[in-house]
Amino acid sequence: MNNFVFYPATKYVFGKGVENKVAKELQAFGMKKPLIVYGKGSVIKSGLLDRVKKSLDEEGIQYVELGGVQPNPVDSKVYEGIEIAKKEGVDSVLAVGGGSSIDTAKAIAAALPYEGDFWDFYCGKAKVTKALPVGVVLTIPAAGSEGSGNTVITKLDGLHKLGMGSDVLRPKFALMNPELTFTLPPYQTAAGITDMMAHIMERYFSNTPNVEITDRVAEGVLKAIITEAPKVIANPEDYDARANIMWSGTLAHNGVCSGGREEDWATHGLEHELSAVYDVTHGAGLAVMFPAWMTHAMKENPAKIAQFARRVFDIEEKDDAKAAELGIEALKKFLTSIGIPVTMKELGIENPDVKLLAKKVTENKGEIFGNYIKIDREVAEKIYSIAAES
Amino acid sequence: MNNFVFYPATKYVFGKGVENKVAKELQAFGMKKPLIVYGKGSVIKSGLLDRVKKSLDEEGIQYVELGGVQPNPVDSKVYEGIEIAKKEGVDSVLAVGGGSSIDTAKAIAAALPYEGDFWDFYCGKAKVTKALPVGVVLTIPAAGSEGSGNTVITKLDGLHKLGMGSDVLRPKFALMNPELTFTLPPYQTAAGITDMMAHIMERYFSNTPNVEITDRVAEGVLKAIITEAPKVIANPEDYDARANIMWSGTLAHNGVCSGGREEDWATHGLEHELSAVYDVTHGAGLAVMFPAWMTHAMKENPAKIAQFARRVFDIEEKDDAKAAELGIEALKKFLTSIGIPVTMKELGIENPDVKLLAKKVTENKGEIFGNYIKIDREVAEKIYSIAAES
Repeated sequence: MNNFVFYPATKYVFGKGVENKVAKELQAFGMKKPLIVYGKGSVIKSGLLDRVKKSLDEEGIQYVELGGVQPNPVDSKVYEGIEIAKKEGVDSVLAVGGGSSIDTAKAIAAALPYEGDFWDFYCGKAKVTKALPVGVVLTIPAAGSEGSGNTVITKLDGLHKLGMGSDVLRPKFALMNPELTFTLPPYQTAAGITDMMAHIMERYFSNTPNVEITDRVAEGVLKAIITEAPKVIANPEDYDARANIMWSGTLAHNGVCSGGREEDWATHGLEHELSAVYDVTHGAGLAVMFPAWMTHAMKENPAKIAQFARRVFDIEEKDDAKAAELGIEALKKFLTSIGIPVTMKELGIENPDVKLLAKKVTENKGEIFGNYIKIDREVAEKIYSIAAES
Repeated sequence: MNNFVFYPATKYVFGKGVENKVAKELQAFGMKKPLIVYGKGSVIKSGLLDRVKKSLDEEGIQYVELGGVQPNPVDSKVYEGIEIAKKEGVDSVLAVGGGSSIDTAKAIAAALPYEGDFWDFYCGKAKVTKALPVGVVLTIPAAGSEGSGNTVITKLDGLHKLGMGSDVLRPKFALMNPELTFTLPPYQTAAGITDMMAHIMERYFSNTPNVEITDRVAEGVLKAIITEAPKVIANPEDYDARANIMWSGTLAHNGVCSGGREEDWATHGLEHELSAVYDVTHGAGLAVMFPAWMTHAMKENPAKIAQFARRVFDIEEKDDAKAAELGIEALKKFLTSIGIPVTMKELGIENPDVKLLAKKVTENKGEIFGNYIKIDREVAEKIYSIAAES
């Protein structure tokens, strides 16, 4: 087991009606004038945003707004937020929405106390050491950003989709009401479920030996997701199933599935290029890229994929290579069952430019990346080809 | 799934050599003059305490000391610590040791900003709303106090052993080096393992339905403990096994196994009387009381005990009552295999005063306590009798 630091300092307030505590939590964390960051659709239509603003008004909390954040959030919106935040003198950021709004909020929070360009943090030129406090009212369980210090932004110039992280960017609080997820369409629900599974698998596929406690927790979260996912697809207003899925999304990414091992994250890198170039939903891109990555990886290194197959999908097969293969099939079957595409074709990408994708991923992730297996441009091309042909 | 708040705001620094970061972490959290709280034995003999003090000296951090904390820590030591802390004007508390030192440190930390008697918090007269910051260098994986806001103290007058908790008492940081646990004797190691399993089981045996995610995480931590425990007993210097056990002890009690359900904690109540009256090791007392509680509870409510049997001990039996029974047997067999007593006799209590124990537990826990099943004085007597006769 490797040395590690785990500092999960977010206050999670979970359950029915908790969004009504937003003013109280802002006050508790000394957040006196937040910039409210949100998207384009559901938080406005559902009336949630109005309710949040009303509860701030009632407590006399001033705020300014940044709406219109899009999925796969972009740098131009961050720059817009930074300008508003500076002009209005906000002291904190409140995201109302899902991963895109939260990641944009974190980017702005990191940028405010920094003199340089915020993109420095994403391209690796600088490290975040301080940030404005961030609060969250979560409406989409998927990215896990409500409990992590991570953020992913796409730079429009060149379509570079890059992530970065720091414990100082962990939200101070996250208000999580599963009822707010009742209206999520099935496809978006399934894409979110895929995203949370991928967050666990990126941590799970590791060569660090003897991390039984972290393996078992990760397998437990995966098993819970697999049990609860069909329920939320069948009945979007099943409160308990929505609650299980929502909390699973947080545990998938807050670090409790990380402790003591090297992580992989190659598949996220591979998928980010798909999202950036073809503008696919992140979770759906992962449903295509993870089986493809596993199909290639098991040839070199089947052991952990076989363990995944046995412990998560109850595959009874002693041979590692065969078990791994059956595990990949079981994963695809599960993803298909919840309505998420597992091939590029199903995703609407008929003739993917695998050479361009492989070139871009090595530009962004490095000439050689990944840990469970090492990936260079040639291997990346192979994996994209598997995804294209499967 | 019930509403819940989960605020796990401890910074865990885990791995080889992390105790050397104590001065750095004290400084990071603004702890300028700590009271160092420790026990009588191993932290002194091993030289750890001297190393901690030396590293504080080197950084010019002032400190005062409170040594001699005993297992099942008592109020008199807390009062002694409060007096020293007030006189010397400390601003924080640093526990070096296991649960007893940490629980004493938390009691002192809560008492300092409070005008009344610190026991008010334990007997339910007052709630902790502020406290001095607490830091931890952990040497005994068992109580999970390094990652919880809980503390248990015994009042010598009447031998009342009571616990209380508040998020403000969660340690700011916990330095956890598994190497520091190499010298723990097998019996103490096994008692610690039992304690952590009990922490999970108190949360797991719940009537709250549809908490799959929390169940799966809890089962995962239990399975990891069951795999790793025999390794640390067989080879006390197996670093990875010690690391898995140490981290399991934290996850068992920091709340990640709690989310969204009513908890039980009856068995801890029952055991606290055993510890208080017969001065047995807490973990060993739990190894006796948990199977006894389960043996009684399964008659009224076998469902969750059957799930425990199937998912944690892989019992393949469809009938709930039979599965539960086999699960209890498997648990006893496991505990026996790591060298921990599972009967009062093995614990050296030949003729327990079950009437006195039942009287005291209802005095301390209430006339009716427990959630998975309801326990009154008569039922408590029955459970103590099962433990006495088994």
